[in-house]
Amino acid sequence: MILHGYFRSSASWRVRIALALKNLKVEHKTHHLRRGDQHLPDYLAKNPQGLVPALQLNDHRVITQSLAIIEYLDETAPEPPLLPSDPFVRARVRAFAQVIASDIHPIQNLKILRRLSGLGIDDEGVRAWAGVTIIEGLEACERLLLDAPGPYCFGSKPTLADICLIPQLANARRFGIERRWDRLSSIDDYCRTQPPFQIAEASAQPDAE
Amino acid sequence: MILHGYFRSSASWRVRIALALKNLKVEHKTHHLRRGDQHLPDYLAKNPQGLVPALQLNDHRVITQSLAIIEYLDETAPEPPLLPSDPFVRARVRAFAQVIASDIHPIQNLKILRRLSGLGIDDEGVRAWAGVTIIEGLEACERLLLDAPGPYCFGSKPTLADICLIPQLANARRFGIERRWDRLSSIDDYCRTQPPFQIAEASAQPDAE
Repeated sequence: MILHGYFRSSASWRVRIALALKNLKVEHKTHHLRRGDQHLPDYLAKNPQGLVPALQLNDHRVITQSLAIIEYLDETAPEPPLLPSDPFVRARVRAFAQVIASDIHPIQNLKILRRLSGLGIDDEGVRAWAGVTIIEGLEACERLLLDAPGPYCFGSKPTLADICLIPQLANARRFGIERRWDRLSSIDDYCRTQPPFQIAEASAQPDAE
Repeated sequence: MILHGYFRSSASWRVRIALALKNLKVEHKTHHLRRGDQHLPDYLAKNPQGLVPALQLNDHRVITQSLAIIEYLDETAPEPPLLPSDPFVRARVRAFAQVIASDIHPIQNLKILRRLSGLGIDDEGVRAWAGVTIIEGLEACERLLLDAPGPYCFGSKPTLADICLIPQLANARRFGIERRWDRLSSIDDYCRTQPPFQIAEASAQPDAE
């Protein structure tokens, strides 16, 4: 399998963590997002959205969207599971993941911030937009975990929730947002001591700048 | 069960379609989004994000995020299934749903459009922002379906993909975006003849204005 990604893309990073947790080896193909490599015709034929990540299977079929890729990996390589077995807890994990994947990341990614600049919003305004989005979203994340046991988001095993949280917290650091959430910070500290999370880190990728 | 929603919210509408397809009856509780009812303390205690929908179970536990709610319904009331059985096709369905749920809807919903107005973008600029987001996203949706059989997005049964598509197409109409996608339009026409989709329509809800 080939993972089409980019070292700093949160969504690619999520898939890297899932692959590492399941000890699955793939070939990594990087697409330089700032240079616009994801809009080249050859890549658009694989993913018409022109976004990373995309997972290319051995038979050349392609799966797009990080959460769909991760659910696919979880269904086809079930050990260790990335979702708990209880339907209600599964729903909580998926909801937590969606807060990040739908309500934080797509609203403050490179593409949207560039669109804001194009509308004449100055750098400070663009950073404030990203900041509000991240802070509001992580605030909700912290509250969604208040009654959930650690050391991971939902107990003693890593799930899709941690997979989404760790890259988003790294992103928050890049925007200079201070660590103000006790529970999220303790999950972050714990995950970052775990080899599958370390292997998947942006800075550990061959395309890291 | 109680579905906390709002007639015009695309995400609430998705859950209504899923409930109708599975013939599940719930109590509907409306939260007037333009008036800000979703930010009242009583509701925030249920959903710290202050967004609809949220599904309140009979034991009072709450599930947030439309896609998490729909996956929960599909796991706990499996007939008819809302995802195909083949893992690759499931992944395609989920990816299609995520294009809408992550890359279109949250970037052009009321909250974001209001934030743009607050930054001094005029009405025309705000509408253009929504338009670009919808057109770019639906363009990708159309291409993701090129090799998939009809009459639904992925064959002869409705899935999570149709559940996300139909409210998004209604939303596109509200923004005056012309129907330029053959495949999406034919799916739309077909779904709108089907009772579960009709029951879930925004205009068929008691809180419709």
